[in-house]
Amino acid sequence: MPSAHRPAPATIKDVAARAGVSRATASYTFTQPSRVSDELRTRVLAAADELGYVGNDAARRLRMGHSLAFGLLISNTANPVYAEVAAGAEREAAANGRFIIVVNSDDDPQRERAYLNFFESQQVSGIIAAPVGGVPPELLALRDQGTPFVLVGLAEGSHDFPAISGDNEQGGYLAMQHLLDQGRRRPLFVGGPHPHVDARLAGARRALRESAADAPLEVIRTSAQNARIGEEVAERLAERSPSERPDAIFAGNDLLALGLLHGLIGAGATVPDDLSLVGYDDIEFADFAIVPLTTIRHPSAALGAAAVRLLLGLEEESNLEGRFAPEIVVRATSLPTTPSAPRA
Amino acid sequence: MPSAHRPAPATIKDVAARAGVSRATASYTFTQPSRVSDELRTRVLAAADELGYVGNDAARRLRMGHSLAFGLLISNTANPVYAEVAAGAEREAAANGRFIIVVNSDDDPQRERAYLNFFESQQVSGIIAAPVGGVPPELLALRDQGTPFVLVGLAEGSHDFPAISGDNEQGGYLAMQHLLDQGRRRPLFVGGPHPHVDARLAGARRALRESAADAPLEVIRTSAQNARIGEEVAERLAERSPSERPDAIFAGNDLLALGLLHGLIGAGATVPDDLSLVGYDDIEFADFAIVPLTTIRHPSAALGAAAVRLLLGLEEESNLEGRFAPEIVVRATSLPTTPSAPRA
Repeated sequence: MPSAHRPAPATIKDVAARAGVSRATASYTFTQPSRVSDELRTRVLAAADELGYVGNDAARRLRMGHSLAFGLLISNTANPVYAEVAAGAEREAAANGRFIIVVNSDDDPQRERAYLNFFESQQVSGIIAAPVGGVPPELLALRDQGTPFVLVGLAEGSHDFPAISGDNEQGGYLAMQHLLDQGRRRPLFVGGPHPHVDARLAGARRALRESAADAPLEVIRTSAQNARIGEEVAERLAERSPSERPDAIFAGNDLLALGLLHGLIGAGATVPDDLSLVGYDDIEFADFAIVPLTTIRHPSAALGAAAVRLLLGLEEESNLEGRFAPEIVVRATSLPTTPSAPRA
Repeated sequence: MPSAHRPAPATIKDVAARAGVSRATASYTFTQPSRVSDELRTRVLAAADELGYVGNDAARRLRMGHSLAFGLLISNTANPVYAEVAAGAEREAAANGRFIIVVNSDDDPQRERAYLNFFESQQVSGIIAAPVGGVPPELLALRDQGTPFVLVGLAEGSHDFPAISGDNEQGGYLAMQHLLDQGRRRPLFVGGPHPHVDARLAGARRALRESAADAPLEVIRTSAQNARIGEEVAERLAERSPSERPDAIFAGNDLLALGLLHGLIGAGATVPDDLSLVGYDDIEFADFAIVPLTTIRHPSAALGAAAVRLLLGLEEESNLEGRFAPEIVVRATSLPTTPSAPRA
């Protein structure tokens, strides 16, 4: 509530009255400027200046000369998850008269920094970033100059930057709990070197700790998470003697899981009879796989949309907590198998 | 060769000598300006002005104030083909010190025009476009202002704009020829309303004309090409009496084919025993499908890279002809089946 000792701050209604425009026009000038003619926008901005109207962060940035675009920095276009994040961001941006420009660092930290410098030169009004590793210093420098960012997914290191991600720890917990429920006792985790994958692994470990099964967890860390690497891991597993093979695999994402599945079947294994398999993300292709893939659903498009809403000041980060809870989608790769004699 | 009556045009060597820099630095100023310091770049550009150095188109555009970015306009991020085009463009751009900014019209012509206007405001130095329908007037206006474009894939209508695409007609021919070679005689084409899909259908018709099989072609046109629509078509096909069902389907792209495959199997059909199926594009997931999908390989990443090379003036369109020949990748959805009695 405004203090009695100071004049109340100017509202959008005051700005509209001073500019001689409707309240909607004044509001659009700050939230959807492409809907307002140049002439009216100039009048509204002049009135806002005269009244010292502040508005929200998004309005302030536009007045500082930023463009109508938000930059979306991703590191790998081959994973459909990023296409879903981008599609969700695009729809939310379109609904608010903004643009999304997507750039792809191709997992190259140097290229990532070059793109952030490029974003600066283009005066984007905010950045949505899924960085390769930690939060790059260029991102912090841009924020200090008035260009905010939101992380999508987890970045390396502990930090309290604005970030939106699903609950990866809980997702990992659900995956491993499901495998244990199927009676699996020789689980293997296969995943890449990413913070969100670490969280998935931590959740899997919690499920094992909380279970009565007392099963050890084997872990294979990969350099990246794609189908080709999954196939390579499957080939190495096939070289083991049967008693040394896992009876369940939790893969760090669906691409890796699809590669594992393909490689295992190619090596003569039967899924889920010989082993159960669970992926992560629920990409569209999980359901079309050679054996439809059990996976953890990850609301990628909703994450992209929420990032745009945060940048526009339409949403507070604290409101988002718990909204992106993961859920398990059980398909054929982990269906119960007919009981058989325990293996050697 | 320069005319004897006029002074020879200035070369990059002349520019380097006048600016007092190495020839490499002079060259980089026009081709990879991010590798040259601001100070040296200013000297080189001044020398180029003094000598009336023209250079190639790409150099001229940078000197006119364009940015280091090329804009890539796509209409649908859900199809992995576009991610491959973007990845190929990104790699070629990175190798030449340029940037690619990707925007997604989400199949909305109005949004497409808004993005082209946005590209203008960002002064991109060239545009790679896969437009929703025909070539939008905004693209022509930008070209007239000195911002060239290259189409990737086919745009509606007949035109002679610079364009890179695989040979869709030949790809369609290969697909249908293969189905006829398998003894199929009740083929169905399922595809969306896109010019490149029309070309694939035309190729399929040519294969039928040239064959001795004298098989009629049924055609189902869909509103778009995604897995969900493929499943819907499969459900409708399953309602037909067995004698009215096709014994082969050629789908306009792999997403549609994967949806058809899923829907057919869900309805109790056996692929390829009951019918053979061929898709188009050879997306990564084609090989991981519930029955691995026979398809036409489409060099998407190479197309994206070639588009960047055209915009940079490193390649001539006439050199590209025939370089992107399609090939068929035969997998399980069209493997020969054991001969059985002809159906009613």
